[in-house]
Amino acid sequence: MLGNFVYSNPTKLYFGEDSKKHLAEALKGYGNNVLLTYGGGSIKRNGIYDDVMSVLSESGKKVVELPGVMPNPTLEKVMEGVKAVRENGIDFILAVGGGSTIDYSKAVAAAANYEGDAWQTFWVEQKDPSEDAKILPIGAVLTMAGTGSEMNGGSVITNEPIKMKIGKVFDDRLMPKFAILNPKYTFSVPRNQMVAGIFDTMSHIMEQYFSGDDDSTSDYLSEGLMRSLIASSRVAVKDPENYEARSNIMWSATWALNTLIGEGKTQDWMVHMIGHAISAFTHATHGMTLAGVSIAYYRLVMKYGIHRFARFAKVVWDITPEGKTEGQLANAGIDALAAWIKEIGAASDISSLGVTEDMIEGIANATIDLPGGYHHLTHDEIVSVLKNSL
Amino acid sequence: MLGNFVYSNPTKLYFGEDSKKHLAEALKGYGNNVLLTYGGGSIKRNGIYDDVMSVLSESGKKVVELPGVMPNPTLEKVMEGVKAVRENGIDFILAVGGGSTIDYSKAVAAAANYEGDAWQTFWVEQKDPSEDAKILPIGAVLTMAGTGSEMNGGSVITNEPIKMKIGKVFDDRLMPKFAILNPKYTFSVPRNQMVAGIFDTMSHIMEQYFSGDDDSTSDYLSEGLMRSLIASSRVAVKDPENYEARSNIMWSATWALNTLIGEGKTQDWMVHMIGHAISAFTHATHGMTLAGVSIAYYRLVMKYGIHRFARFAKVVWDITPEGKTEGQLANAGIDALAAWIKEIGAASDISSLGVTEDMIEGIANATIDLPGGYHHLTHDEIVSVLKNSL
Repeated sequence: MLGNFVYSNPTKLYFGEDSKKHLAEALKGYGNNVLLTYGGGSIKRNGIYDDVMSVLSESGKKVVELPGVMPNPTLEKVMEGVKAVRENGIDFILAVGGGSTIDYSKAVAAAANYEGDAWQTFWVEQKDPSEDAKILPIGAVLTMAGTGSEMNGGSVITNEPIKMKIGKVFDDRLMPKFAILNPKYTFSVPRNQMVAGIFDTMSHIMEQYFSGDDDSTSDYLSEGLMRSLIASSRVAVKDPENYEARSNIMWSATWALNTLIGEGKTQDWMVHMIGHAISAFTHATHGMTLAGVSIAYYRLVMKYGIHRFARFAKVVWDITPEGKTEGQLANAGIDALAAWIKEIGAASDISSLGVTEDMIEGIANATIDLPGGYHHLTHDEIVSVLKNSL
Repeated sequence: MLGNFVYSNPTKLYFGEDSKKHLAEALKGYGNNVLLTYGGGSIKRNGIYDDVMSVLSESGKKVVELPGVMPNPTLEKVMEGVKAVRENGIDFILAVGGGSTIDYSKAVAAAANYEGDAWQTFWVEQKDPSEDAKILPIGAVLTMAGTGSEMNGGSVITNEPIKMKIGKVFDDRLMPKFAILNPKYTFSVPRNQMVAGIFDTMSHIMEQYFSGDDDSTSDYLSEGLMRSLIASSRVAVKDPENYEARSNIMWSATWALNTLIGEGKTQDWMVHMIGHAISAFTHATHGMTLAGVSIAYYRLVMKYGIHRFARFAKVVWDITPEGKTEGQLANAGIDALAAWIKEIGAASDISSLGVTEDMIEGIANATIDLPGGYHHLTHDEIVSVLKNSL
């Protein structure tokens, strides 16, 4: 833990199959006019919508619905939400859905009372709302595990016309005030989405883990989270209604990206940058884009952080170091990661996600350039990762 | 994660060697009359007192000092604090010290505006303050790592005349609003106290870990924390001013007992119950009492939770399972724990802490009876653990 940092995470989490009972209590103290945001209507088929609406109604809330939040929420849709907030005097946003719906709701909460160009200020220039900004409080009922958006300030928005997908991490004023985490609400998620969420979580952990050379408690916590996630993923892909496994996956996803395991560390995030660029070109599912490029990416950067990759093999995958050089051990860890990607049914390549050779230059150009963890990729190296992932 | 639970931990942590710069900012928004609580005056010798007083003075706070908080804070001392709060119209309590000072400050904060018998209500009957109770906000500048009191609601108080030491875990209203965690502030802690804090932390983790049979992310996080703590403790006992090691120890201590690694789990806590009873009889340092009885305790309960003890050996101590029965593996884990206790210089027995054979019946009687993790101890078994620890 060599860095200086401030940890502040006030989101209150109600976890478990009985957690929905707490929604009325959680809503107390917030205003009467609620904007209810959700996605494509699956919550109406699986009963979650009815659960939530009955609590809102019993709590005397006036509800304005804003359905149709898409998997990669667009700036255009954000502005629709801003309009709804302003026209209806909204006091509180309740997001019912996965990371897209929650990310979206934060964007609306930040932009609703902002008079300038929200896209330019918050996403392009990565500025924070001013100290006296009026920010709408939001809450979340989570229906899909993966992004960690339920307990962080992250908000990834896509500007469709210019094909830019950018993530902004807001400070704790935009974190959900509370989140209802009911593992049973994730049972109806299609298998492909469940797997994408699992890999998204794994990638969040790896992108914080594969950076830095000091001895840091954060990395040991990451190893614990990865071991738990891997064990539960193996159960869940065979038995998606296994409550124990789905609850561990949900809890791991929350703690994988609520700042804890990255505290005091430099971080990587290039896999996410490449993945976002792929999604902007193909609309492929976020978690799958990460799986599709991870193996090529880690094979490329491995030699710059060889000790950490060897440790990953040993601690996370239980690979015995005896009789192996450090390089062989490190490679065996990436082999294990590749085998696990196949085993759980995540994407082993990006061709299957709709990426074709002629898109690669465009995707590489749209990839936001970050310093990376152990190595700063050149443009040609990004192209090479993409080609090796086809 | 089979249980239902609510996670709420709003304490803001300022971590790192530069963290003291944040004290003025952290104090903003709280009232003007500050009660400054601290222990025996070591903070005056190592400069922490001057650091804090200069910030308080620059922030325009009116300070009432309450020094002399003892290692096992007494109810009598709590009532002295309550009197100071009432007489001086105190708005905020700033605890500068280790767990004892912070535990003490929570007790004063809970009791100051309570008209009934605080000891009876909060500690003996384990009730929470009423919903409309006026609870003083507190903050902490941590000078010693171990108890986790800086980010939880725990408050252990000793009623001297009746030799009862009881811990109460208050809800999030009594958690510190903020804590300054500067690893350098722990450098001047005497070696024996550093080691006691390390074992206290280890015991917090083990007492949450050694309970339950389900597959739970909480246990994987515990394993990560234990691995980190063990690695850093080995560095710190040889080189107490190793910043990296001391920072990991400080951060591990905070996360070992801020509810995270116990969420969704049954827990044990019998080692703490026996340790508290020993302290009430001998004034021995808390962490050392835990070390002194742990080996005998775990040897006794091991057979009731054999899978977990075998896992502990393999994952936490890297003991190879090949060629061992599950029982042999489990025993090897406890052997490793015993060897580590010796290595870091924690107490391997309770005779060295001043316990004599004639005290044992009294200590056993003063031990609060909890269900335990894998096994509910009888009175005779508590006596046996104590005798085997002499």
